[in-house]
Amino acid sequence: MAIVKNEKITSRDVDFAQWYTDIIKQAHLAHYSSVKGCLVIEPYAYAIWENMQTVLDKMFKETGHENLYMPMFIPESLLKKESEHVEGFAPEVAWVTYGGKNQLEEKLCVRPTSETLFCDYYSDVVGSYRDLPKLYNQWCSVVRWEKSTRPFLRSREFLWQEGHTVHETAKEAEEETFRMLNIYKKFFEEYLAIPVLVGKKTEKEKFAGAEYTLSLEALMYDGVSLQSATSHYFGQKFSKPFDVKFVDRENKLQYVYQTSWGCSTRMIGGLIMVHGDDNGLVLPPKIAPKQVVIATIRNNENVLKVASELESKLKALGMRVIVDTSDKSAGFKFAEYEMKGVPIRIEVGPRDIENGQVIIARRDTGAKEIVKIDEVESIITKLLDDIQANLYNRALEHTKERTYTCTTLDEVKEIMQTKPGFVKAMWCGDPECEAKMKEIRGTKSRCIPFEEEHISDHCIVCGRKAKHMVYWGIQY
Amino acid sequence: MAIVKNEKITSRDVDFAQWYTDIIKQAHLAHYSSVKGCLVIEPYAYAIWENMQTVLDKMFKETGHENLYMPMFIPESLLKKESEHVEGFAPEVAWVTYGGKNQLEEKLCVRPTSETLFCDYYSDVVGSYRDLPKLYNQWCSVVRWEKSTRPFLRSREFLWQEGHTVHETAKEAEEETFRMLNIYKKFFEEYLAIPVLVGKKTEKEKFAGAEYTLSLEALMYDGVSLQSATSHYFGQKFSKPFDVKFVDRENKLQYVYQTSWGCSTRMIGGLIMVHGDDNGLVLPPKIAPKQVVIATIRNNENVLKVASELESKLKALGMRVIVDTSDKSAGFKFAEYEMKGVPIRIEVGPRDIENGQVIIARRDTGAKEIVKIDEVESIITKLLDDIQANLYNRALEHTKERTYTCTTLDEVKEIMQTKPGFVKAMWCGDPECEAKMKEIRGTKSRCIPFEEEHISDHCIVCGRKAKHMVYWGIQY
Repeated sequence: MAIVKNEKITSRDVDFAQWYTDIIKQAHLAHYSSVKGCLVIEPYAYAIWENMQTVLDKMFKETGHENLYMPMFIPESLLKKESEHVEGFAPEVAWVTYGGKNQLEEKLCVRPTSETLFCDYYSDVVGSYRDLPKLYNQWCSVVRWEKSTRPFLRSREFLWQEGHTVHETAKEAEEETFRMLNIYKKFFEEYLAIPVLVGKKTEKEKFAGAEYTLSLEALMYDGVSLQSATSHYFGQKFSKPFDVKFVDRENKLQYVYQTSWGCSTRMIGGLIMVHGDDNGLVLPPKIAPKQVVIATIRNNENVLKVASELESKLKALGMRVIVDTSDKSAGFKFAEYEMKGVPIRIEVGPRDIENGQVIIARRDTGAKEIVKIDEVESIITKLLDDIQANLYNRALEHTKERTYTCTTLDEVKEIMQTKPGFVKAMWCGDPECEAKMKEIRGTKSRCIPFEEEHISDHCIVCGRKAKHMVYWGIQY
Repeated sequence: MAIVKNEKITSRDVDFAQWYTDIIKQAHLAHYSSVKGCLVIEPYAYAIWENMQTVLDKMFKETGHENLYMPMFIPESLLKKESEHVEGFAPEVAWVTYGGKNQLEEKLCVRPTSETLFCDYYSDVVGSYRDLPKLYNQWCSVVRWEKSTRPFLRSREFLWQEGHTVHETAKEAEEETFRMLNIYKKFFEEYLAIPVLVGKKTEKEKFAGAEYTLSLEALMYDGVSLQSATSHYFGQKFSKPFDVKFVDRENKLQYVYQTSWGCSTRMIGGLIMVHGDDNGLVLPPKIAPKQVVIATIRNNENVLKVASELESKLKALGMRVIVDTSDKSAGFKFAEYEMKGVPIRIEVGPRDIENGQVIIARRDTGAKEIVKIDEVESIITKLLDDIQANLYNRALEHTKERTYTCTTLDEVKEIMQTKPGFVKAMWCGDPECEAKMKEIRGTKSRCIPFEEEHISDHCIVCGRKAKHMVYWGIQY
């Protein structure tokens, strides 16, 4: 059955940017504050973030990582120790210059990322190979003085986790870099129901100060791609300037090998733009703050009794359930929980329950089904799995449809101007060619996949000998 | 049986401040960073904080509160809207004046607390009595530009939670203020095993901008008191300048009634100073990152097998268990986990297990017991409860011993200079008398209890008619 169009949101096929803004507002996800460029993350979005945190944090801890907390300030001299890093970040940091009424002797930036602080700490606490590896992570907020603001995608402050590890050998550190990439991949696919491309960033697009950067790239409904998480291998690029040394097994002084990896509240933006539709959010059951809403229609004693019994039964199965017995109209209630993307709605009304029945509606397809009350538990259990799988498959199908193979720039232009997506094309390795590609609606290299296809022998831009197959796309 | 004194820490009876510093360092709780006045909260201390968060967050959510996230910056104009508030906080905030290379049009302070931001938000999202109450909380870091640093007790940045609620009526808001005080009290007593005094702060000691402040005060081992959490009633003191209005049930515009309440990583300092001893931390089982350590002695196949079986069994009971099968000496291992305050140690050695036995040592008393391997589960289960109760009772006993009733300043002087603690004494209500009391080693009013005793008719300082019985003490 078709869902009736919600009037409060612009259709996503008409104006995707406005649709996104409408959903942020109508589902109460984020609120523009008096602080320019910063947003309030409202309770419903924060509950999604908490669910993300719970799953990821467990995955991190199961792989031996521990959490800690670093200061939010970085003295200018510390930020400057690694030259590429400071070049990359200094133009976009916020500077604290006064404490109370006193000017500071050295200005402090609010962390845009904490490599420098972790290095400073590791240089104090790592002495021997017996102290290695250190596998630490922190959940915190970071600040980057962006010019434009888009809720969850770009703002001056955002929440994230940043893992920072130090190792005895390059091999071990590189394994960690890939391990974390795979943890993110599993998280995106199995929990967020978002298919991702994984691969290596080009030199131009890698993290400031890294040997190399691995990333996860996801395709939104509008065909624009979102860099969704990154995992960096630093080698000894930070440990040398920061003097993070250890005595190795041969009693020699060595510099540690290092990684960092992170993901942020940007993932909430990804969830919205991959799964959402013209009636609002559509949330994967595994990450939804509420998985089932029980909405009563024309309350009477029996209706309330059935609703309450169903609530207890589903909660006993570990499901996250909300019951709405308010006197709002059925239509109003339905639209509200559709807007919030609650995966399943159970409608409990007086006539149905006389027949021992309720109506179950799924958010992803809008399909409704009349079911026997005593079958609700088993049906919902199965349905939550079905919805989770369906959202993933639907997004995968969309990504496949929007993944193109190109050999000429005209093809790329045509695609990016009409129905953008991921473009597979060959590249010679020259940043000049990346710059030319960017002229096409800002198309950038997304990543070089670990298994490259051979599309042609020639760079799509300059025609010289190709070195890599690259995924290209417009980005958020 | 007595525990052998750990050589790495100063005795707490010889030099309490040094003892505290030694524990912070030896148990790897906090690390001085390159950022003056800021500390790294190391993984072991952070794990304690996570346990505190988990318990408190559940208590908050069970009473209807939701988490959200506010920006970390406050524009100067917003901070200035409530006059008492800005007077209290402006001298100790960090100011951001530059974003990248550009000077900001208006400087921003890093939040020292977020009343102003919540008010700003509430003024946008509250319109009608139907929107009330809003019961929001956030976990975040805050910054106060302190001059001195003491890990967990005083630092320029610390972690905390801050609840901010708005209500339709004064009665409802006042109930919330007391509800949260009682949640903290339950948390301190039942989880941290720390007895607390609760009461109202004097005008001089209340939060800048509050109608009144309720607080929890705990007595440390050295007799110095620690303000451990606070719950403020604001009435309409913030809602008026911030224009947080709603249409009431009679269709009239009213200002909301407001509260805020918070507790911080300072609680970790409290845990250390209430329960710790000359061998390190002593942690209450309910909050300890690891509740049981299984330490093997002279490993052989059987020893490892028994250790592993015990681990599985205890974990299956939901206990947090760590196994140390390293080849470090028994003495070294024991000292390490004593330092970390792990409540119970199980020693698994070859000779004992031949007799089907292991040794169980409790951290709080140092008592050791030989027990049958098949009784370990039931004994540990009971022992964890015993230790939790014993720590609370021991701290309560100590607080009682150090709680005095005084009628003259000479008595107060004698006590504060020899064996400080809480002093109960009468007060006329004049801040001048509080100022005079402060001349005695910085003695301050802690709180006015909800049930005051009648000690005398006269203020202990000036002899005029007494208004209140006050608890006084030296503070951290």
